[in-house]
Amino acid sequence: MLIRLGYDIQFEIPAAVAMVAILHVHPSRVEDLREPDNLIIDPAAKTASYIDSYGNRCTRFQASAGLLRLNCSALIEDSGAPDAVDLNAREHPVNDLPHETLRYLLNSRYCEVDRLSNIAVELFGKVSPGWNRVQAICDWVHSKVAFGYHHARSSKTALDVFTERAGVCRDFQHLAITFCRALNIPARYATGYLGDIGIPPVSAPMDFSAWFEVYLENRWWTCDARHNHPRIGRVLMATGRDASDVAITTSFGIANLKHFTVVTEEEFPAAKTGAGS
Amino acid sequence: MLIRLGYDIQFEIPAAVAMVAILHVHPSRVEDLREPDNLIIDPAAKTASYIDSYGNRCTRFQASAGLLRLNCSALIEDSGAPDAVDLNAREHPVNDLPHETLRYLLNSRYCEVDRLSNIAVELFGKVSPGWNRVQAICDWVHSKVAFGYHHARSSKTALDVFTERAGVCRDFQHLAITFCRALNIPARYATGYLGDIGIPPVSAPMDFSAWFEVYLENRWWTCDARHNHPRIGRVLMATGRDASDVAITTSFGIANLKHFTVVTEEEFPAAKTGAGS
Amino acid sequence: MLIRLGYDIQFEIPAAVAMVAILHVHPSRVEDLREPDNLIIDPAAKTASYIDSYGNRCTRFQASAGLLRLNCSALIEDSGAPDAVDLNAREHPVNDLPHETLRYLLNSRYCEVDRLSNIAVELFGKVSPGWNRVQAICDWVHSKVAFGYHHARSSKTALDVFTERAGVCRDFQHLAITFCRALNIPARYATGYLGDIGIPPVSAPMDFSAWFEVYLENRWWTCDARHNHPRIGRVLMATGRDASDVAITTSFGIANLKHFTVVTEEEFPAAKTGAGS
Amino acid sequence: MLIRLGYDIQFEIPAAVAMVAILHVHPSRVEDLREPDNLIIDPAAKTASYIDSYGNRCTRFQASAGLLRLNCSALIEDSGAPDAVDLNAREHPVNDLPHETLRYLLNSRYCEVDRLSNIAVELFGKVSPGWNRVQAICDWVHSKVAFGYHHARSSKTALDVFTERAGVCRDFQHLAITFCRALNIPARYATGYLGDIGIPPVSAPMDFSAWFEVYLENRWWTCDARHNHPRIGRVLMATGRDASDVAITTSFGIANLKHFTVVTEEEFPAAKTGAGS
Repeated sequence: MLIRLGYDIQFEIPAAVAMVAILHVHPSRVEDLREPDNLIIDPAAKTASYIDSYGNRCTRFQASAGLLRLNCSALIEDSGAPDAVDLNAREHPVNDLPHETLRYLLNSRYCEVDRLSNIAVELFGKVSPGWNRVQAICDWVHSKVAFGYHHARSSKTALDVFTERAGVCRDFQHLAITFCRALNIPARYATGYLGDIGIPPVSAPMDFSAWFEVYLENRWWTCDARHNHPRIGRVLMATGRDASDVAITTSFGIANLKHFTVVTEEEFPAAKTGAGS
Repeated sequence: MLIRLGYDIQFEIPAAVAMVAILHVHPSRVEDLREPDNLIIDPAAKTASYIDSYGNRCTRFQASAGLLRLNCSALIEDSGAPDAVDLNAREHPVNDLPHETLRYLLNSRYCEVDRLSNIAVELFGKVSPGWNRVQAICDWVHSKVAFGYHHARSSKTALDVFTERAGVCRDFQHLAITFCRALNIPARYATGYLGDIGIPPVSAPMDFSAWFEVYLENRWWTCDARHNHPRIGRVLMATGRDASDVAITTSFGIANLKHFTVVTEEEFPAAKTGAGS
Repeated sequence: MLIRLGYDIQFEIPAAVAMVAILHVHPSRVEDLREPDNLIIDPAAKTASYIDSYGNRCTRFQASAGLLRLNCSALIEDSGAPDAVDLNAREHPVNDLPHETLRYLLNSRYCEVDRLSNIAVELFGKVSPGWNRVQAICDWVHSKVAFGYHHARSSKTALDVFTERAGVCRDFQHLAITFCRALNIPARYATGYLGDIGIPPVSAPMDFSAWFEVYLENRWWTCDARHNHPRIGRVLMATGRDASDVAITTSFGIANLKHFTVVTEEEFPAAKTGAGS
Repeated sequence: MLIRLGYDIQFEIPAAVAMVAILHVHPSRVEDLREPDNLIIDPAAKTASYIDSYGNRCTRFQASAGLLRLNCSALIEDSGAPDAVDLNAREHPVNDLPHETLRYLLNSRYCEVDRLSNIAVELFGKVSPGWNRVQAICDWVHSKVAFGYHHARSSKTALDVFTERAGVCRDFQHLAITFCRALNIPARYATGYLGDIGIPPVSAPMDFSAWFEVYLENRWWTCDARHNHPRIGRVLMATGRDASDVAITTSFGIANLKHFTVVTEEEFPAAKTGAGS
């Protein structure tokens, strides 16, 4: 399956400001690109690229005052398979976890493991461990939290989601991540492209999406407490402890968002040829 | 100058539990050790050692049920010089900062940059940048926050410190770190040994100490909003975003602290020889 | 001046639920009514009326399942004078305040005097007391907080407003009230009708409005940190410690708001006659 | 049964400050006093007394700079009966509750009904209503929250208690009150004398105590999520929405507590006579 990826993001910049963008497909997916995902910055800016401590590819640059446009159109090949499921995937005892997964057991800005620990144990402590427990967490969050764009706010934490029971993608994942960590299951935040491939078309404007990953049975698995069923065509951009680590763009000063569109669509080669003939 | 370092930490462990300890001197100080800082675990446990994503040396092991004792006695050579000061050290524009410092500008569990950003700008936005601004932040925190062990609580954040104006070492640093980050100065949490070398003896029992580091003029500098004057004989153990990242010990289950002593004292070779003869 | 007041509020009620409405003009304004402000409940419900501990007139009833409509049209005579101003109004020493004002110095749900006390003293402790200090508080809140309906959320407290710097009417007042109380100036929340009388027409749909009152120089004065200039034609409905005490409607179970309009307009008797002839 | 009541509270007052004290037995118990509960203020101050909006007797005065001592010794007659229990006491539908109980269903400073509402319904929504449900709430709080004086902090709310699971008397009651209100059971905070009458002597220094009251079956009932069993010899001082309303002393400026003792002991007339002969 081929998926067309892209975005057009525009900011009004009142004064020159440093920016960091995590607007690339994740290094683990680079080999699948059939058209490169070049980030086009307009007006052009000198960029530097680096891999952050979580393994994400980042681009940094100085944005000039005025209108800033970031855009991209890329094509990626995807297996077309839905998110992997293994009902038998087991939790690792903490002492057997790989070193690099341990940080995904700790507190982070939006995931207050310390404050939700007792609650997690009460809700899920007696559920059989492994895949089943992660699923129970996703089911709980999915059924208890109401989705709505008007519930979004940048400072909302997992505890806020637990008390308010409303939020957007990222909020669902933050709460599920926090519950997993409290139960000693490594969990990390993921962000990327997720169109409505394989499901009925959705009327809402496309956006990037958030999901999360848990470490069970020697690997990371994709989970999604917002949608709560396997999906086709996710294209990972970045992972981190929580939304703080993987903001699509971070501006170190004022940048007013003016326009935002994202494209994530299956592309059919025949149709494309037809259109061009 | 030679400094005797050590600790004796004891836990009552009700059921076997995985632990991670950051109970070593920082890799940057290993070459100064004159006696190694071996962590002795009693009863003995199989350990694994690794360097975490912040560059700290960590030891992990499974603690058995019963009494657990962690202890160490080491000797380190120290310059005896007080914390470096450079009144002319400049802030870097964000776009000129090294990649690896950028994460120390972001939110973390105990440092809610998003919530304290406006306040930081109001308090320090007009202070001349560089060393002077960091000093203004330390002065403010030092003068506004009251120290007291009874003010400690594990979930206290920088915003709590800002409103409650009371805390322990870590709380002073969390607030100062958050202010620095809000002003685009990379700041990270540091923990280590700090005895009363070079100051009048302190009657309180010794403990590990927390301070912080800021990145100015191409390097990291030691700052301390709790004590707020240059000190002699700090021995760094670990740095991270905040206290979440560098807990001396993290137990992934119940471990009840029963005993805790820390030693950080200047050792005089002659006196030692004399005592032994 | 005659002001036409009214509202049409509709709820979908899934199951019978008890409600309390504070949908009357305040007892202090009843004598100004030229047409009574009868609350019409459809379908009709048996009501009970009482004066709460803050002096507000409340109506309670059991709402049946189905569509519930609350509406009213009333006419009130108003002086047409703007909010009173007395630049010389003095603060009372706490010990001289009337007993009944003391509760307006304390903490309440949305006004955490305890957490904002140090901040208030730092910002306004050196401002000359009395009217001038209250004005300084209103100026600060007015200039620092951004208005926007999308910033509304029911659990937002004064501390949240202080850190987020964004909100709706009630948020501006909660922060100003909290600062006043921290400085020992009694301050209470007020809600009522406020149309765009005496100002250029506003395009936003009309709503009830929130303002606040402070006790200076032997009386309560109207203040408004949201608009921050004297207004004409306020019609008070209720006062209390904060928005918790004076919700327009409180339902003790689920009631989904379906429709909400408020009318607050100057009515010109001649024009009215003319329209009818 | 006769109970000796009293206290000796001393403050260091740096500058004259207004104070309000709720240091009297509740008006409902005045007729039981055998020796009056005069508040002796040293140095003497001119006092004013009033009944606040919750029905508590308050004394206000201006404390001079220097040492302030508040003390009292009184004797009260008590039935000696334990707290009343009625396993059949029913909840009232909200619409049948007396007007004056409705405010005890709402949010208050330390009882965030809005934030704990979903949680309360999940935990107790299916428990049979009435006495049994209130008991289930007390059992839950009693078993889940750890008591410890070092867990006290003045800004701790019910939500904090729910997440931290540790606190003092007042914290237990705040959480239980919030749960009750969320389930539409009026609940109010109570403070007063509670010695160790009828139980084995307690080694901790005596203090005032906090409990709470719920409205069931046409009356208020005493509940205590901290001790969670009927006690003998409570002497009520004040009730209110939460601890904000019924602080034993409120100073509107700095007053440093220097000494604090409370007496609550059964007094045996014969023994007393004997001692005097």
